[in-house]
Amino acid sequence: MKETITVNLKEDIGVLNKPIMVVGLPGVGHIGKFAADYLAEYLEAEPIIDIISPHFPPQVLINEDSTISIMKNMICVAKTEKNDIVFLIGDNQSTSPQGHYELCDIYSDIAINLGVERIYTLGGYPIPMLSEPQVIGVATTTDIFEKLKEAGVEIRPSEPSGGIAGTSGLLLAFAQHKGIEAACLMGTTTGYIVDIKCSKVVLNVLGKIIGIDIPEDALNEKIEEMEKIAEQFKREPPEEFESQMEDDLAYFG
Amino acid sequence: MKETITVNLKEDIGVLNKPIMVVGLPGVGHIGKFAADYLAEYLEAEPIIDIISPHFPPQVLINEDSTISIMKNMICVAKTEKNDIVFLIGDNQSTSPQGHYELCDIYSDIAINLGVERIYTLGGYPIPMLSEPQVIGVATTTDIFEKLKEAGVEIRPSEPSGGIAGTSGLLLAFAQHKGIEAACLMGTTTGYIVDIKCSKVVLNVLGKIIGIDIPEDALNEKIEEMEKIAEQFKREPPEEFESQMEDDLAYFG
Amino acid sequence: MKETITVNLKEDIGVLNKPIMVVGLPGVGHIGKFAADYLAEYLEAEPIIDIISPHFPPQVLINEDSTISIMKNMICVAKTEKNDIVFLIGDNQSTSPQGHYELCDIYSDIAINLGVERIYTLGGYPIPMLSEPQVIGVATTTDIFEKLKEAGVEIRPSEPSGGIAGTSGLLLAFAQHKGIEAACLMGTTTGYIVDIKCSKVVLNVLGKIIGIDIPEDALNEKIEEMEKIAEQFKREPPEEFESQMEDDLAYFG
Amino acid sequence: MKETITVNLKEDIGVLNKPIMVVGLPGVGHIGKFAADYLAEYLEAEPIIDIISPHFPPQVLINEDSTISIMKNMICVAKTEKNDIVFLIGDNQSTSPQGHYELCDIYSDIAINLGVERIYTLGGYPIPMLSEPQVIGVATTTDIFEKLKEAGVEIRPSEPSGGIAGTSGLLLAFAQHKGIEAACLMGTTTGYIVDIKCSKVVLNVLGKIIGIDIPEDALNEKIEEMEKIAEQFKREPPEEFESQMEDDLAYFG
Repeated sequence: MKETITVNLKEDIGVLNKPIMVVGLPGVGHIGKFAADYLAEYLEAEPIIDIISPHFPPQVLINEDSTISIMKNMICVAKTEKNDIVFLIGDNQSTSPQGHYELCDIYSDIAINLGVERIYTLGGYPIPMLSEPQVIGVATTTDIFEKLKEAGVEIRPSEPSGGIAGTSGLLLAFAQHKGIEAACLMGTTTGYIVDIKCSKVVLNVLGKIIGIDIPEDALNEKIEEMEKIAEQFKREPPEEFESQMEDDLAYFG
Repeated sequence: MKETITVNLKEDIGVLNKPIMVVGLPGVGHIGKFAADYLAEYLEAEPIIDIISPHFPPQVLINEDSTISIMKNMICVAKTEKNDIVFLIGDNQSTSPQGHYELCDIYSDIAINLGVERIYTLGGYPIPMLSEPQVIGVATTTDIFEKLKEAGVEIRPSEPSGGIAGTSGLLLAFAQHKGIEAACLMGTTTGYIVDIKCSKVVLNVLGKIIGIDIPEDALNEKIEEMEKIAEQFKREPPEEFESQMEDDLAYFG
Repeated sequence: MKETITVNLKEDIGVLNKPIMVVGLPGVGHIGKFAADYLAEYLEAEPIIDIISPHFPPQVLINEDSTISIMKNMICVAKTEKNDIVFLIGDNQSTSPQGHYELCDIYSDIAINLGVERIYTLGGYPIPMLSEPQVIGVATTTDIFEKLKEAGVEIRPSEPSGGIAGTSGLLLAFAQHKGIEAACLMGTTTGYIVDIKCSKVVLNVLGKIIGIDIPEDALNEKIEEMEKIAEQFKREPPEEFESQMEDDLAYFG
Repeated sequence: MKETITVNLKEDIGVLNKPIMVVGLPGVGHIGKFAADYLAEYLEAEPIIDIISPHFPPQVLINEDSTISIMKNMICVAKTEKNDIVFLIGDNQSTSPQGHYELCDIYSDIAINLGVERIYTLGGYPIPMLSEPQVIGVATTTDIFEKLKEAGVEIRPSEPSGGIAGTSGLLLAFAQHKGIEAACLMGTTTGYIVDIKCSKVVLNVLGKIIGIDIPEDALNEKIEEMEKIAEQFKREPPEEFESQMEDDLAYFG
């Protein structure tokens, strides 16, 4: 296996209704991943394509029932009143710079094949100090900025000044190259934790843009849960926490 | 040489008897490598395939008689009363993330070609403090867990939480993808040393699962030997030990 | 996308008039990039080829109007009285050693296809202490040294002693291999800042060599601007500056 | 350029007389490189093949006359009374693990095509403390050890314990795989400097093995020269020396 493969899970997907793509993969503060996963779950999105790549980390994940799952990204589809939503979600960014190009080329081809009209990539925007999360936006064209601003997105000239790395940035470049309108919505975060509060703000903005009312109850529950875990870590001796961290990152031959 | 090659050492392997694959390559505490090597030696397993790859480290090994050996992994076969055992053993994991995917694809194809019914990968499970070794298991399916538990394997929900990296994890993903049942047995270890005590516990559990009585005498001898070496290092000035370590890791153009 | 692609922006370029190539990409002190960008802008060079590569960093750039641009290098052409000038400019060097070879092979093929007679690559020459910038030169042949010396270039035997890495060096090797005369002009710089003063000296020398009078007014303005920014950073608390730096380098999933 | 290329410099090489290959590339203490370069120069070896590879460092070298040279390795041939000597010399090892496999495959194919009967790779064997240089040997077969011992080579069981990395090790593996007898001769060195004293000892041993009397006068001159430079560095302020070192290693965009 030397190339990325895509596995179709449905024989016939049919024609989608004005499809919009929402992309959330791991990254700074896991803002994008958490937001997209949450929305896909809420809308009961159905997996239609598995993406497996030698550019993903060479490991397996362990499920709650102790079975394993291959590292993969997924295309899932949910139907809403106004549009079909195509999700690109999963566990992985590329482990190599070149892999990002191969994968974003594939992601954008899938978007074209499904007739996607607009792509929203979700991500984190790292800031040095904790503050009320804001959503910063960039896009392949200025046409979309009015709509983003109405939903509360800030458009800051030339920001982020260092560009946007990874899928949420590079996919916009491929979308632009292939003629699909695309925007990246970034929630400001310190990035030290899975920042669900920030994901909630990004989701709220995205909901306004694509016309979906996303209930906040379940979100608030998750935020409370997260805060409890954070509290617990504070009380526990740091050694315990660190060794736990080491476990998580360790290489098990 | 830009791709992994496999060299068949026997013209005709014939049909194996309900073959089971045991995989032990270098990794945390060399638990898997030591256990699989020991069992292959005890069962007098015969090499049938050499695997050589540009993803292995670019070096040669020095034998006791000062001749060299290319870095390779091997497929060896041993006959037991109940099953033929197919070993995947050797000196190497991939040096690159992508190489792991190429190699595990090849390993699982070999398993299919040999008619392997189940794969057991052996590895180490890093823990921060030395304690009595335990064996933790995960698998491609829950069907096998009852059998593992009877042999003393612990099934802990969602553990290891960071997944399993390298061959012992990724091979399970490929096995699952290609329809072969597979489990990973991990012995808990600090991973600082070649932890033969832990390998012994893993071997004991594996023996129960695959119905082989593995004699402990030779194992206990090796453990004693290892403990003597550890003692010796403690007595020697640390500089000596460190420079020895540097030698071992050095790059000899 | 697994290979570098070139996109022709004009259907018919026609025959160029004794074309000379000027190459300035990011590097030490951004000497080459700033000088080539400045000259291309002054001569109103027209883009004719885009170069996009999986060996470029996997990210997008953000324009002043908050739209995005794919990372690319460009071939642009400007007409002057004596020669047509072919610029190789852009945002990128290769992220991998192998990519440099692939890209310089492509760059030199473009030069051949356009009939380029001589290549000048511009770069920085790192020195430990700030001093009046000097221009050091090397070339594919000694034939050109007299001309370079007349313009104020120093030819120092065997310097730089460690060779020249990256496009400004390797492209000379490919030019030599394919029979195009080429020289590298390096301005001495500490490399800690975008050293426009040094770029100005390199530009001045290049102008003499290729017979173009480059006005200094706009350059001097930029230098003043740069010095103001440097002053501002000195006055600001260093934390602010550092966190700004971190932003610039951050990975935004 | 995505693959290693070989450029034949002579139309017809003819049949070589019982050819022996001597390999010396950069490595620990540059023992092998210095020894092989010295012998090739002494025997006035003639270049017959250039080897250029994207796995070499992406840079050019600067000659004494300020012209540039592409990074390459070379096959050169010298005639002696007893044998033709085929040299593999040059500036480069692979920058990637996979590249080593590609290159050693190519080197060993060249050896086969030239009818090489035996390969001697020369290298350094790092030791922690400066002492009288010794030559340690390993080989593809024990047949050759008697001959090596007679010339003063030490055969130490299982040493070096960490194997031999890079061309001088991996080429032995490819030679073994393709049926050419090969040995590696390693001079002990701290590896902190270009250790010409050690190279001299290795050359002396190699001369005995292949039956060539290598004059020591020029060697002793070089050693004296080297010692003067070392003395000079000791007297100079260390900052000067370090910044010089940084220059040598710097990346000149």
